[in-house]
Formats: sequence, C-alpha cells, structure tokens
Amino acid sequence: MSAMGNPTNIFWHECPVVKTERQKLIDQQGCVVWITGLSGSGKSTLACSLNRELHSRGKLSYVLDGDNVRHGLNKNLGFSPEDRSENIRRVGEVAKLFADAGLICIASLISPYRKDRDACRAMLTDDNFIEVFMNMPLEVCEGRDPKGLYKLARAGKIRGTAGFTGIDDPYEPPLSCEIKIEQINGICPTPCDMAGQVVSYLDENGFLHA
Amino acid sequence: MSAMGNPTNIFWHECPVVKTERQKLIDQQGCVVWITGLSGSGKSTLACSLNRELHSRGKLSYVLDGDNVRHGLNKNLGFSPEDRSENIRRVGEVAKLFADAGLICIASLISPYRKDRDACRAMLTDDNFIEVFMNMPLEVCEGRDPKGLYKLARAGKIRGTAGFTGIDDPYEPPLSCEIKIEQINGICPTPCDMAGQVVSYLDENGFLHA
Repeated sequence: MSAMGNPTNIFWHECPVVKTERQKLIDQQGCVVWITGLSGSGKSTLACSLNRELHSRGKLSYVLDGDNVRHGLNKNLGFSPEDRSENIRRVGEVAKLFADAGLICIASLISPYRKDRDACRAMLTDDNFIEVFMNMPLEVCEGRDPKGLYKLARAGKIRGTAGFTGIDDPYEPPLSCEIKIEQINGICPTPCDMAGQVVSYLDENGFLHA
Repeated sequence: MSAMGNPTNIFWHECPVVKTERQKLIDQQGCVVWITGLSGSGKSTLACSLNRELHSRGKLSYVLDGDNVRHGLNKNLGFSPEDRSENIRRVGEVAKLFADAGLICIASLISPYRKDRDACRAMLTDDNFIEVFMNMPLEVCEGRDPKGLYKLARAGKIRGTAGFTGIDDPYEPPLSCEIKIEQINGICPTPCDMAGQVVSYLDENGFLHA
C-alpha cells in the first residue's frame, strides 16, 4: 500500500482477493477440464453431463463450448489454420481466468493439434489442466454425425481453407492425458459413466473441496 | 433429447445447467460492474476494494482488469483505434460469460468511447450491466498519475497511434450510467466509500441474493 501525497488523493490499496480465498468461499478448487476429440466423439455430451453432475454435488462449473464461443468472443475468427489456433488460444485464456476465479471450467473443443492444447496447458500450472481425450473410433463418430458435418466433408462441401478433422486434416491424440474416455468391448460409455469417470478424478485429486 | 439409431450411440441429452441454477447455488445474481474513467481516476482501487467487500459478504466476484488482460487474452492487441476497440469487445464478451456463470464480474477499463461501452452493454440484458463512471477531474487524475503516464503523455512520449485519453484523445462520459463516483466538496471518496456505494446499488437491486 502506498499513500499519495495530498488529502484528496486516495490510498493505493494492494488488497486483491486471491484464488485460495475464492476457493474457500465455494469449497472447491478451480481448474480446467479440457475435453478434446473428433466431431461426434461425445465432447458436448460429456461437458453437459459433467456440468450437471458437478452442480448436483453443489460445485460451481461452467462450460466453454467451441461452437458457442464462436458466436461471441471468437465471432471474428474463421477457419484458417491461424484462426483455428487463435480460437483455441482465446478459449484457453478464458478458461484460465475461470479457473483463477475458482470455477471448474469445462472446455469442449475438437482442438486437434497437440501444440495448441499444450499451449493451453502451459498457461496453467500442470495440475490444474485436466485433459480428457475422447478416444472414439472415427467410424463411431462418423456414424453418429450429429451435425451432418462428416457427410458434408465426404462430399467435399466443407467451407474454409482447412480440412475436416479426421477426414482430410489430422487429429493428433494426446501423448499423455489425465483421462481417456473409451469404448469397452465395443460399447460406448453412457453420458453418466463418462461424467462419473471425470468426477472420480476430480474427487481423488482434491478439486471438489478447498 | 434425441435417441440415436444404434446401441453404441449415446443419447443426446439437452441438460444444460442454466444461469438461475448456478445463481441459486451461490445465492447471488450474475452481472457485470463496468468501471470506466480516466487513467488515475481510481478504477483499479474501486475494483479491488469492491471485490474485497463482496468477498467479505460471501459473494463470488472476479476482476477483469484492462491492463492484466493485455498480458493474456489480449496480448496480441496493440493500441490502434481498432485494437483498443477489440480489446474492449473481448473483455465485454468474457464479462458476459462470467455473469452467465453467476459471478459478479468487475471490469475495470478506461473504455473512453461511448459506442464501445454501449456495445458491451448490448451484449447483456440491460439490468445486468452496471456502468460505474469515475467522474474525477483530469487535474486530480493527472496529479495522482500512478503509472507516470500523464507525464509521458505531456512529454509526447506515449507509444502507439492513438492519443492519450484526457490529453490528446477524448473521454466520452456516459450519458446515463447506473452509478457515479465523485468528489464531495473537493474531497475524493475513500476506497471503502466507493465500494460501499456500489454494494448498496447491488443490494438494493437484488444482486446479492439469488
């Protein structure tokens, strides 16, 4: 704190409320759960069911969805390689702010390139970045095709300069991630099972209490 | 909710946790407190003391500071008119996300132009954007000059294409704002008084309970 020279000047208080104080208030630890995987791999479904499960446990979480953010913060970005990279960087920066605010921030983006995800990881301390890889076979994702994008991609009708991830642009799976969501004996886990897997991780690693 | 065609496909649950549910969890209402004013007018001081006061009342708030954000989310922006405008737009979009998450988001930026502030207001419902105008005389701000920027500006040593707000670039005061912070009989309010003024507004308008 520094006092300024005359009475009309205010004192300059250095009194920031720090992350640990916010965490204590809501009894949880801020972090980023980063869900990556192909279109149709179940990212949004997991984000949604995880958010619901955390809420039912009294925990404050918030979903940053790649598609939704493109309507707001990132509406001035297109689909060139640079813009896709900037799209991910901005979501990473915002996720970092949410984690600092004490929330469990659930980011759900294809984020196909390792370097973009690793750059987001590097924004946080390593413990607070929990990478969840939706390890679903392309055939399963393409079979679901919830947005009809694979059909468009196969027909060569996807806009933009970049290819479509999984079809004509690579998806680089994490080399080491905190959580993998996979089929068991060819059966996909339910939304509830997927959320349960992440919640168990968060619980075991102390994130559900301050 | 729509069921997909085969058993390996998941159900597509539409189960988002909505703002009102998050608000109930933490017993408050998400909003944006947008603090605008000249450099040295006390924006950061108010942001800090408001954040502290809200925390002491058990309320979850978070400060988005114009300078800090330029080290992260907005580090790829300079000081051209377009970049300053984009700087404010991004902070507005992020503040909107924080308000949607249920937090009282305190944004502290010079934000000299009415149109930029009004664009941020337009992102939210009108009730949830609380504009706080630091109505301090230029002489007071320049007398404080906490960052030494006025001295540089007067000496013509400020970088960038844009001028320095208050010296060679205009500050456009709000035409109608929710809160004005002003001197009384030539005396500046203390940080505590300023925070109290905003907290009273939030309290009277129902933001401190869900």
